[in-house]
Amino acid sequence: MHQVVSSRTAAGGRSVLRSAKARLTSCRGPRRGGGVRGVMTSVEAYTALAEELKEIDALSGIDAILGWDELVVMKEKSAESRAAQKAALASVIHQRQTSERLGELISSAEREGGLDPMQEASVRDARLKFDRKTRMPKELAKQEAILGSEGYQAWAKARENDDYDSFKPVLSKIVQLRIDEAKAVAPEKLPYDYQIDKFERGMKASRLAEIFETVKAGLVPLIEEITSAPQLSVDARLAGGDAAPIFEVDKQEALCAQVMERLGFEGILNRSLHPFTGGTASDVRITTRYDDKDFISGVAGLVHETGHALYEQNRPAGENLGMPVSEALSMGIHESMSLLFERMVGQSMEFWTFLRPMVAESFEFTENLEAEDFYKAINKVQKSLIRVDADELTYPLHIIIRFELEQGLFDGSVTVDNLPDKWRELYKQYLGIDVPSDKEGVLQDVHWSSLAFGYFPSYTLGAMYACQFFQHAEKSIPNLGAEIAEGNFESLRAWLRENIHSKGSLYPSADELCEHVTGKPLDPTIYLDFLRAKYRKLYKMS
Amino acid sequence: MHQVVSSRTAAGGRSVLRSAKARLTSCRGPRRGGGVRGVMTSVEAYTALAEELKEIDALSGIDAILGWDELVVMKEKSAESRAAQKAALASVIHQRQTSERLGELISSAEREGGLDPMQEASVRDARLKFDRKTRMPKELAKQEAILGSEGYQAWAKARENDDYDSFKPVLSKIVQLRIDEAKAVAPEKLPYDYQIDKFERGMKASRLAEIFETVKAGLVPLIEEITSAPQLSVDARLAGGDAAPIFEVDKQEALCAQVMERLGFEGILNRSLHPFTGGTASDVRITTRYDDKDFISGVAGLVHETGHALYEQNRPAGENLGMPVSEALSMGIHESMSLLFERMVGQSMEFWTFLRPMVAESFEFTENLEAEDFYKAINKVQKSLIRVDADELTYPLHIIIRFELEQGLFDGSVTVDNLPDKWRELYKQYLGIDVPSDKEGVLQDVHWSSLAFGYFPSYTLGAMYACQFFQHAEKSIPNLGAEIAEGNFESLRAWLRENIHSKGSLYPSADELCEHVTGKPLDPTIYLDFLRAKYRKLYKMS
Repeated sequence: MHQVVSSRTAAGGRSVLRSAKARLTSCRGPRRGGGVRGVMTSVEAYTALAEELKEIDALSGIDAILGWDELVVMKEKSAESRAAQKAALASVIHQRQTSERLGELISSAEREGGLDPMQEASVRDARLKFDRKTRMPKELAKQEAILGSEGYQAWAKARENDDYDSFKPVLSKIVQLRIDEAKAVAPEKLPYDYQIDKFERGMKASRLAEIFETVKAGLVPLIEEITSAPQLSVDARLAGGDAAPIFEVDKQEALCAQVMERLGFEGILNRSLHPFTGGTASDVRITTRYDDKDFISGVAGLVHETGHALYEQNRPAGENLGMPVSEALSMGIHESMSLLFERMVGQSMEFWTFLRPMVAESFEFTENLEAEDFYKAINKVQKSLIRVDADELTYPLHIIIRFELEQGLFDGSVTVDNLPDKWRELYKQYLGIDVPSDKEGVLQDVHWSSLAFGYFPSYTLGAMYACQFFQHAEKSIPNLGAEIAEGNFESLRAWLRENIHSKGSLYPSADELCEHVTGKPLDPTIYLDFLRAKYRKLYKMS
Repeated sequence: MHQVVSSRTAAGGRSVLRSAKARLTSCRGPRRGGGVRGVMTSVEAYTALAEELKEIDALSGIDAILGWDELVVMKEKSAESRAAQKAALASVIHQRQTSERLGELISSAEREGGLDPMQEASVRDARLKFDRKTRMPKELAKQEAILGSEGYQAWAKARENDDYDSFKPVLSKIVQLRIDEAKAVAPEKLPYDYQIDKFERGMKASRLAEIFETVKAGLVPLIEEITSAPQLSVDARLAGGDAAPIFEVDKQEALCAQVMERLGFEGILNRSLHPFTGGTASDVRITTRYDDKDFISGVAGLVHETGHALYEQNRPAGENLGMPVSEALSMGIHESMSLLFERMVGQSMEFWTFLRPMVAESFEFTENLEAEDFYKAINKVQKSLIRVDADELTYPLHIIIRFELEQGLFDGSVTVDNLPDKWRELYKQYLGIDVPSDKEGVLQDVHWSSLAFGYFPSYTLGAMYACQFFQHAEKSIPNLGAEIAEGNFESLRAWLRENIHSKGSLYPSADELCEHVTGKPLDPTIYLDFLRAKYRKLYKMS
């Protein structure tokens, strides 16, 4: 129906025809139903399963491109038609993901041996996903769709008006939905464990609580110590705000493109309202945003997204491309790949030793700044109300507060009614700050309104994995610091590709990956030691 | 599987969640099969049909966005994964377009009255498309897919090497495929008539031959007359090529964006290798390209695509959006809408009266040029070998030659063997020029290799409709010329919207639309008279 409309040139004809051709290249008949039982061996069954899963993956890839387009290209007025497109596509994908035929293909592939470990992992995850999708009661799925949209709208309005009460009824329904869903889909798990597992496979609330207790016990006094020390003096050129000079946005963009290239990502870079990584493994796209008073935030965004992008691009390819094993292991691991670049690399003295001259070339007025000036500017610690503005040191407490509140909502010790009070209580207790409004408190994040519980922990798990991975990389690459100071990221990239990226979802949990890579599961004391050493040294500088 | 990956900010979370939400918003069960017969009245049947057609349209809209992305954003290395995405989507769309359920919905909607004319047109076209798709034998559809890809590749290589012989075998198969297809799908029509009808509904080769005889008889001597007259002297700044100054591309783009806005199109403008109009009715996107020695070509491309874009954007909306009646009536009508802007407006003295000061503002060195200078530069006549480089006056002969050769290929009077000779013969006979190579001759266009026969006539039909429509608009809008000279396109746009855009595919042929708009079907003598008057006057200027 739609076509690329002819243009005035030959190639215009080409456009029209190309699209006509695209329509024709897959005029096959209706898909075969059932019929995969019987003589099929496991390997044949695996091949048939792989074909189906890759086609579903291709359709999901389309959704990813549409998602990118929506945030980078599309105009707001097209939102309604885009929603119809996405709904139609989601319906097609959902049918395929829950079809009887897929179930039979998975069963056949499971029945016999002969698969390699990557293939086995794909079958394992195909089963997991299929069961979860098919066990979801229709009624709950319908409610989920309704609440997804209602919840977001109610939250956006409530936040705008600083009116938590108006959000309460829908939040109650959302919590109940997530409890009911868990009971129906994974009755063997505690409901909150199931929610966590959706983002962080293999993780449980009990282990998270343990990890976070350790972090809290170390971090609360450390933050006290650091924030009581004399403040870091940050050069006015790098401090952002009114006193800062103008960093021309086009020049920032050109600089970021150079940095991206040096980091080794060769995909597509655009601007968007908020930085993100989108597209598909074969077509990874990142965005960042530029603040003309604060060029560091644009670079930090770029470095962070490049970390995601390299993970996207380097997961299992070849015959495993588009298979479950090629997916990200967990949100925590994805975040560890971005934070490894943003924090372990991008917030290091070595990185700014490399970047400083490039910055001076783009912005002459920074010429007499030292790497240390940038290092201080990017690592300044300040207690704050808002998670997304938090620095490396205080960030985990924002997460731990949310984790504890989520846990409470699921075990009944926190209610939707007393949630804002509990929020205030914990911010006072852990960070020592008063929350003046719900807008700057319990209403600040989109996650709950978008039905996501168990998502927050990924951020801090990512930071901790990043640290543990990076320290191991430092042991394996003796000159890593010096290489970074020269803008040479090759061995780091190779190490990440070999040890983490290329493993995809081979291991059933991030802890198992971590054990394979570093010799032990996640150990929060590594992160704590790192923070203590880094910030004590930094704050003695002043 | 794919998701927009988390970014370092709240909104990053939002991105992840937004995409998760999108996946959830249409978790409905499998589509109902059959079951539309029985008590359903026609209007209910129409509603059910509309729902299905709109969902198919939404899926086709996705294909359009992917097509745009491929030409504007995507990197070449992602071509393979994009091809898999498009194939998966095409397969889904094809299933839906040929499903038994759709057939039953159409039959039910046809059964009773009570529909308005727009709805009736939708049912009529739904039937037409469904029958054509379902009558296509599987074997031919398969061959079509194979030849579509083989043909294009063979052509590209043959053109590069100026080696027609290597293209011959696949071209033979393509012609035979199109004959077989027509016999199978539309046995009541002559095969070439069917091919024409695919692009230009209701048109037949016999009527085209009549029209083109008239055009040829008028044009051959007129071109002789004009090209024998003293050459137009074009100012070196506007003549392109080495002697021309540099028109900075960023400034051209800014100028084009302004022109687009003045013309009244509020969509998305990008650069691409070749100008085109893409996207969907609710999300129209145009591109143009810039030559830094020849700014007129960028503007001309922009004006042309804006004409397409306005047609895309203003066809039936509301309840008819996404229904067959909202589609373009024919390629000829689509082209008429672009050529009305490009030629009737953009190649007029009035348009350059309006644009000249804007050009001077962007490019100071054009300050002392008059509208007449631009008018001459854009209307210079020159016989040429290549269709896409042809000017308004000689262009139709390029088309008529291709039409006569296509006709010959379908009735057997031209063979794939003697096609290049016939090509040379006709270029000599109609344009008086010698064709030095097949690369600059029979191999210059992509259309046949992409299986498209009957497409070429649309270009010249479009030019003629554009002229007939525009002359009628001039009668209805007394001050149209003066308005254009002021850069006011409002009444023209309103006239087009009311008389042409908003009619969509209401009428079953372009001739019927033309009769409703201008009081008579397409009359080629109107176009001939226009060309005679315009070019005789222009060439007396020199």
